[in-house]
Amino acid sequence: MKKILITGTSGFVGGHFIHHILSGSGEFEIYGVSRSKPAWDFIPRVSDILCHHQFYEADLMDADSTKSLVKEIDPDYVLHLAAQSSVAASWSAPAASFTQNTKIFLNLMEAFRSTDTDAKILSVGSSEQYGNASQLDLPLSEDKPMCPSNPYAVARVAQEQLAMVYANGYGLDICCTRSFNHCGPGQTEQFVIGSIVRQFALIRHGKQEPVIHLRNGSVVRDFLDVRDVVNAYNILLMRGKRGGVYNVCSGKGRKIRDIVVMLSHMSGIIVDIKEELHQLRPMDNQCIIGSNTKIQSEFDWYPKISFEDTLRSMYDYRYKCLKHEIKTNER
Amino acid sequence: MKKILITGTSGFVGGHFIHHILSGSGEFEIYGVSRSKPAWDFIPRVSDILCHHQFYEADLMDADSTKSLVKEIDPDYVLHLAAQSSVAASWSAPAASFTQNTKIFLNLMEAFRSTDTDAKILSVGSSEQYGNASQLDLPLSEDKPMCPSNPYAVARVAQEQLAMVYANGYGLDICCTRSFNHCGPGQTEQFVIGSIVRQFALIRHGKQEPVIHLRNGSVVRDFLDVRDVVNAYNILLMRGKRGGVYNVCSGKGRKIRDIVVMLSHMSGIIVDIKEELHQLRPMDNQCIIGSNTKIQSEFDWYPKISFEDTLRSMYDYRYKCLKHEIKTNER
Repeated sequence: MKKILITGTSGFVGGHFIHHILSGSGEFEIYGVSRSKPAWDFIPRVSDILCHHQFYEADLMDADSTKSLVKEIDPDYVLHLAAQSSVAASWSAPAASFTQNTKIFLNLMEAFRSTDTDAKILSVGSSEQYGNASQLDLPLSEDKPMCPSNPYAVARVAQEQLAMVYANGYGLDICCTRSFNHCGPGQTEQFVIGSIVRQFALIRHGKQEPVIHLRNGSVVRDFLDVRDVVNAYNILLMRGKRGGVYNVCSGKGRKIRDIVVMLSHMSGIIVDIKEELHQLRPMDNQCIIGSNTKIQSEFDWYPKISFEDTLRSMYDYRYKCLKHEIKTNER
Repeated sequence: MKKILITGTSGFVGGHFIHHILSGSGEFEIYGVSRSKPAWDFIPRVSDILCHHQFYEADLMDADSTKSLVKEIDPDYVLHLAAQSSVAASWSAPAASFTQNTKIFLNLMEAFRSTDTDAKILSVGSSEQYGNASQLDLPLSEDKPMCPSNPYAVARVAQEQLAMVYANGYGLDICCTRSFNHCGPGQTEQFVIGSIVRQFALIRHGKQEPVIHLRNGSVVRDFLDVRDVVNAYNILLMRGKRGGVYNVCSGKGRKIRDIVVMLSHMSGIIVDIKEELHQLRPMDNQCIIGSNTKIQSEFDWYPKISFEDTLRSMYDYRYKCLKHEIKTNER
């Protein structure tokens, strides 16, 4: 049976990816590595999934552990999700953020190169790589220039360029994504839609005044449901070209403020919006929209879940979680 | 008196830069930091220069030492030369090369950011950043895409992109060069012209058969005399724009094999050429030529030393050094 290794397995995307793989027709042994154990309460049939997932608690910042792990598992496929992916954290600790993200990637690459282990590797990157894109270049296709504008984004560009060096210079079978914003049930309030959804659920439970707090409601982003994201990752992991780079995105731009309005209609809750402009980051792009023409034309991948369904499932999930939390606290 | 700090001061470029500064009309206190003491036997009036140069032996890989140094010196200008700049070494130890180059740069940036020290910083980058450039894009101007094709080059791209983040996001006064190949008296045989010149001098002294060993004689590179390079660095350090990026190059392409022919005529030594094709690197660009239009038009900088004079001074210097070496060995 073919083996898949997932780095950063315990996160939001890791859980959804494993659920996707186990729901599919292929048979795989699934290995995951992360610094903390997975919880994944947002995944259907989670106990079933946990028993199909061989979990290794390890830190990929350690080169020797990474090498031992790769030798022991000897995977056929690797989905590399592990990253410190907060832009805000990269502004407050730029050196640590940059070093951590590039080091874990290099440790992984060196583990494969030095042990001569053959595997198909998918390196997950970010739309942040495009950075201060010209609005004339929208929607952003993969040939557009990369002008990263925060420390996290520079690390992501370096990761992709290192991936190309390992693919073309050392012969590793690696391809890369530039993944735009994603969202879906289980996303935490660290991310913008996760935060808005949680606030609506708090308001519904009477735990927050009917005011939605935002950093900047006027920016436009390209959001894709995490279940469409992991479907794209599965396709690229199995069939993506060596040295290839693929946008993973919806191709549609949505203004944050409009998402608040959609959630207001959906939940029947009337809210005000308060923008915390003092929280603005040094450089925020006004509008980021990707083009998914390449992945569509090469692999016939396209988004299947409507944005309305995504918001609905996120709100339902968060509402239930909070209900449970509130009950537990009241006991 | 204004203070200049030079990182990686002990190298080939550091020595020539200090000589240039001390030969000019401005008055500066000069501080240098490096992991090893400078020798600079290739610089005229070296003892005079050494006594104008306050040298700190320190490793910029250490964040705390870097911070203490910046606080203690409190420089007005910083020329950041310190780097592990061998492409070959980056192929044999990619992770170490990448990590070292980005870490010393981040340590320096963080030292200025965290101590709120104001200084004008010139970050020296490389033509390797352009990498697998399209031949249609020659000569390469600063707006051309960067496609780095070795680990060293990826680190250089990251350094420039981080410099832009520190300039635009944190307000540091930093500008960047993309420096093409340079050469001049004192250059070691690690670099292609240094190696060819040394072989001619060895042949003249009867210490080598009349055969010049090359890795690849057919590639075309853009070579600039180190004395023109340091003049450009001085101008950019004093007047370069915050967040600006400038090519430092001759604007002319020269085939390595033609340089052998020039040296053959100059020295009167007839040689054969032997190409060590097994030494070829995974990915070598055939032709790299830069455009120096930007630095010429903004600062009226242009190369002053002819390539023939450069080769002559390199050959004369190396011939004398070898004479001295041979005498010492024969004693």
